[in-house]
Amino acid sequence: MAGVKEECEKAGKQCGACGERETCPAGETFAPAHKLSQVRHLVAVMSGKGGVGKSSVSALLATTLSRQGCRVGILDADITGPSIPKLFGIKERVEGSEFGVYIPKSPKLGIYVMSANLFLEREDDPVIWRGPIISNVIRQFWTDVAWGKLDYLIVDLPPGTGDAPLTVMQSLPLDGVIIVSSPQDLAVMVVRKAIRMVAEMKVPILGLVENMTYVTCGKCGQKIFAFGEPQGEKVAAETGVPLLSTLPIDPELSRLGDEGRIEDYTPTGLEELASTLEDRFKSSSKTARLLFQQ
Amino acid sequence: MAGVKEECEKAGKQCGACGERETCPAGETFAPAHKLSQVRHLVAVMSGKGGVGKSSVSALLATTLSRQGCRVGILDADITGPSIPKLFGIKERVEGSEFGVYIPKSPKLGIYVMSANLFLEREDDPVIWRGPIISNVIRQFWTDVAWGKLDYLIVDLPPGTGDAPLTVMQSLPLDGVIIVSSPQDLAVMVVRKAIRMVAEMKVPILGLVENMTYVTCGKCGQKIFAFGEPQGEKVAAETGVPLLSTLPIDPELSRLGDEGRIEDYTPTGLEELASTLEDRFKSSSKTARLLFQQ
Repeated sequence: MAGVKEECEKAGKQCGACGERETCPAGETFAPAHKLSQVRHLVAVMSGKGGVGKSSVSALLATTLSRQGCRVGILDADITGPSIPKLFGIKERVEGSEFGVYIPKSPKLGIYVMSANLFLEREDDPVIWRGPIISNVIRQFWTDVAWGKLDYLIVDLPPGTGDAPLTVMQSLPLDGVIIVSSPQDLAVMVVRKAIRMVAEMKVPILGLVENMTYVTCGKCGQKIFAFGEPQGEKVAAETGVPLLSTLPIDPELSRLGDEGRIEDYTPTGLEELASTLEDRFKSSSKTARLLFQQ
Repeated sequence: MAGVKEECEKAGKQCGACGERETCPAGETFAPAHKLSQVRHLVAVMSGKGGVGKSSVSALLATTLSRQGCRVGILDADITGPSIPKLFGIKERVEGSEFGVYIPKSPKLGIYVMSANLFLEREDDPVIWRGPIISNVIRQFWTDVAWGKLDYLIVDLPPGTGDAPLTVMQSLPLDGVIIVSSPQDLAVMVVRKAIRMVAEMKVPILGLVENMTYVTCGKCGQKIFAFGEPQGEKVAAETGVPLLSTLPIDPELSRLGDEGRIEDYTPTGLEELASTLEDRFKSSSKTARLLFQQ
């Protein structure tokens, strides 16, 4: 599935937030990036169903890439259920100024984070916004935030196939989407929906991460398949979307996430995913795909 | 927190889908029910965060009430991530006619189910609809579906505080909302948001169900707190919302749900909840609150 950006490159043009809507050969209407943003790879993390650990996977992908030496940011597009700041223990409030918006960094690895929760007076204030406002906020997180020079900007999408994922795919020049699932049939059914939606939007699917596959008994070491037998390989075979990684349920991850210390967690199974991303992007494009607005 | 319906009753009027928008003392704009609907109690099941088992709780509440002799229906308002038909193994396609929409029943207990998934050609077709369309569909599930005579209509809300839960609370004359959470701090934070949202909408909160509190090791019987220590009692004490029930993770429930046989599962901890509902409604209203449109 070739993306619009790849089509642009084939046509000898560099695509991505060019803002030249009238002249875009693919008829795309990507929102222009902030003039101080220079993002090499824009990768979205999506799940059809909520609660499969999408935000944890976004956060752990960011920490893994960061540990490998990349400059990383996270755009929290889950506007009504934002969880990224909490995972990183970021509590400072953000305010806009005439020069743009200041971006908080995670305490240890310095990962840049932008989230609707950072604008709230209290973290448990509800965000009761209708779809169009939510869509605007997500666009603004791209157009009005000076992300600076980043190797990766990870977009944590809200679950489902509603307004917010649609907006992100229509507005942001994504390099690809990673889809997170859990072993439940239900989740797998909804993942198929998500795969079809992404394909319809002509955004490349990078692969599937199956999360919450088992939990290990702390007493006897037994693996408990709490949500049923893993199905990642089956889904990969059925849909042609590669299975990038399989992750367990880990109470330690829950604990560190709850304490805002996800940076202290070292996941297994994501280093390879991070390397795969680098390889994949290297092979699909010989030039760095700068999104820097000329 | 008194609801609009209670205010109506205090004023000597029977409220609920009366359709008399102009004369409503509370200024409510509930959508009128289908003229063949006669629903005693309209209860929504909500979660701030996805994946906490909200749909399973909706389904199990329905089966429990049904086993206690109530006539029950489920309105699946999770339009972009519908899972109710799958849990009950309902695969028939629904089509509208000039007389209204035929409602499928669950195979064992005869629970009526209406869901967006029943209109799709394939259950994994994605529903890529914008908010206003989604809101309309939910309203239509109330106004255009002849639910008949029901003791309980359970509304399975989509997660979050976005368009769909807003629409349901503004459009349907809910008797109350049950909020489902999991032990993760994150889920608890989002639950506080949901509680505040429901309170702002002046819909009565019936209580909290804490789901996925632990999983039991099949080998040694150890309880594993996969998502952290239970927090239901703490949240109940903090928010004043009563903790109605605490449920474990049960691989057997996952399996039966995946097989479309959730009716074969006998939950523990929900019988009491079902009785609590009956008592609560009895004490809050001496007359049956018929939503039958005059």
